[in-house]
Amino acid sequence: MLIIGERINSTRKKIGEAVQKGDADFIRGEARKQLEAGAHMLDVNGGIPGREAELLAWLVKVVQEVQEVPLCLDSADPEALRQALPLCRQRAMINSITDEKARWEKVMPLVKEFKTRIIALCMSESGPPKGVDDRVAIACRLVGRLTSEGVALEDIYVDPCVFPVSTGPEHGPALLDAAWQIRSRYPEVHISAGVSNVSFGMPVRKLLNETLLVLLMARGLDTAIIDPCVEGMVARILAAEALIGQDEYCTSYLRAYREGKLEPRPAAP
Amino acid sequence: MLIIGERINSTRKKIGEAVQKGDADFIRGEARKQLEAGAHMLDVNGGIPGREAELLAWLVKVVQEVQEVPLCLDSADPEALRQALPLCRQRAMINSITDEKARWEKVMPLVKEFKTRIIALCMSESGPPKGVDDRVAIACRLVGRLTSEGVALEDIYVDPCVFPVSTGPEHGPALLDAAWQIRSRYPEVHISAGVSNVSFGMPVRKLLNETLLVLLMARGLDTAIIDPCVEGMVARILAAEALIGQDEYCTSYLRAYREGKLEPRPAAP
Repeated sequence: MLIIGERINSTRKKIGEAVQKGDADFIRGEARKQLEAGAHMLDVNGGIPGREAELLAWLVKVVQEVQEVPLCLDSADPEALRQALPLCRQRAMINSITDEKARWEKVMPLVKEFKTRIIALCMSESGPPKGVDDRVAIACRLVGRLTSEGVALEDIYVDPCVFPVSTGPEHGPALLDAAWQIRSRYPEVHISAGVSNVSFGMPVRKLLNETLLVLLMARGLDTAIIDPCVEGMVARILAAEALIGQDEYCTSYLRAYREGKLEPRPAAP
Repeated sequence: MLIIGERINSTRKKIGEAVQKGDADFIRGEARKQLEAGAHMLDVNGGIPGREAELLAWLVKVVQEVQEVPLCLDSADPEALRQALPLCRQRAMINSITDEKARWEKVMPLVKEFKTRIIALCMSESGPPKGVDDRVAIACRLVGRLTSEGVALEDIYVDPCVFPVSTGPEHGPALLDAAWQIRSRYPEVHISAGVSNVSFGMPVRKLLNETLLVLLMARGLDTAIIDPCVEGMVARILAAEALIGQDEYCTSYLRAYREGKLEPRPAAP
């Protein structure tokens, strides 16, 4: 499972404030915390209106002072991406392209020029998908268009588009069925999701986020944009990996146990 | 999701002691606790060698003093079942029948006579299943044989047979794939599992048990034999039900939240 840490997002209050103030220490701390918690890649979002290009580049620089980690650039602004991509010392991912003409035309040239990995979010001109069939159809169209531009299947991360569960009981099953169909049709393509969308407006968000993650892992998800610092989240991923045959002899699970990472930390005295 | 509480099992030390001593208060307490935690049915196992018939009947009587709850009689001893079944005030379930000649001949007449629900455990004369295909083949044979004896599809609870994850990385995926294939082939048959088998010999068993439960729910599981008193277990089932479209408008999830059942209880002062 590829764990992409989602914390460094300027639309979050504390991050937005740190970014506005140029508080590099705070940002480096956020990067360090996520890497220690098990993130393999860090999402960075500098989405403050009017300053995105400048701020995304700054974030990319600051985060890499901690460690040379691959970054997922969370922006649809071609100028921000163009300034940030050359600063990435490891191969970057772009979050995201969609099957919308304007977005495609802005993002696709950068995917090719910088040979990035790419999150293909199941959205089209007619907006977000409503069921299984349109999710799968958009995914197929995106995979077809991307590969015809020369993007390798294993560099594509299809996001079947997570809706808040509060908006209707039909969205969860549609998401899971679509993930499974996409996984079955394209064994080499990755399936990714920003699971925390599911719990907007709901209580005990962590419980819903963690549970959706595991449900999706049973249906082929291999990449997740999550907050790895949430207690128990990475432990649950390790448990699921052991159970779906992705951790031979439970090596990673048992190592995490010995390192005290599977059980809740005792409260400070 | 049908939650079958597994605590009243005489092979567990405390229960075995209470059963030996005839400590009805303790047993009633175990029943009450599980029902309060969300069990819909209680498994009772009186498996103390030489005394099973007497003890199972006693357990059935004692548990029903708490509440008229449906029981799952956990025994392959025809004499124990024959004495206990007439005492069940609600329609019982038998745990379990297999595709083994001796077991079949002992259990099947009781299923018919008492019109019970039945757990069909995927085991055959050649022992426990090794992969997906033998699990599915045994399930098909069991469903075929049961229906030809007049058992309704919706009274059959197929258990695809959970192995400890420590015994090999292949068992988890085989279990999940088999559950999915059985669910797809027989939409009216229930899929059940005793998930705690998965974590024998492993640390942080609760994490593995809960995670397997959710993985299986993504593949069609609708019945689980679990300890509902384990903190967070029922909460996780409610979260999964909301996410797989089995809790319209999250009614049950939100009710459980209002009742304080979703979050960990604060430690006693």
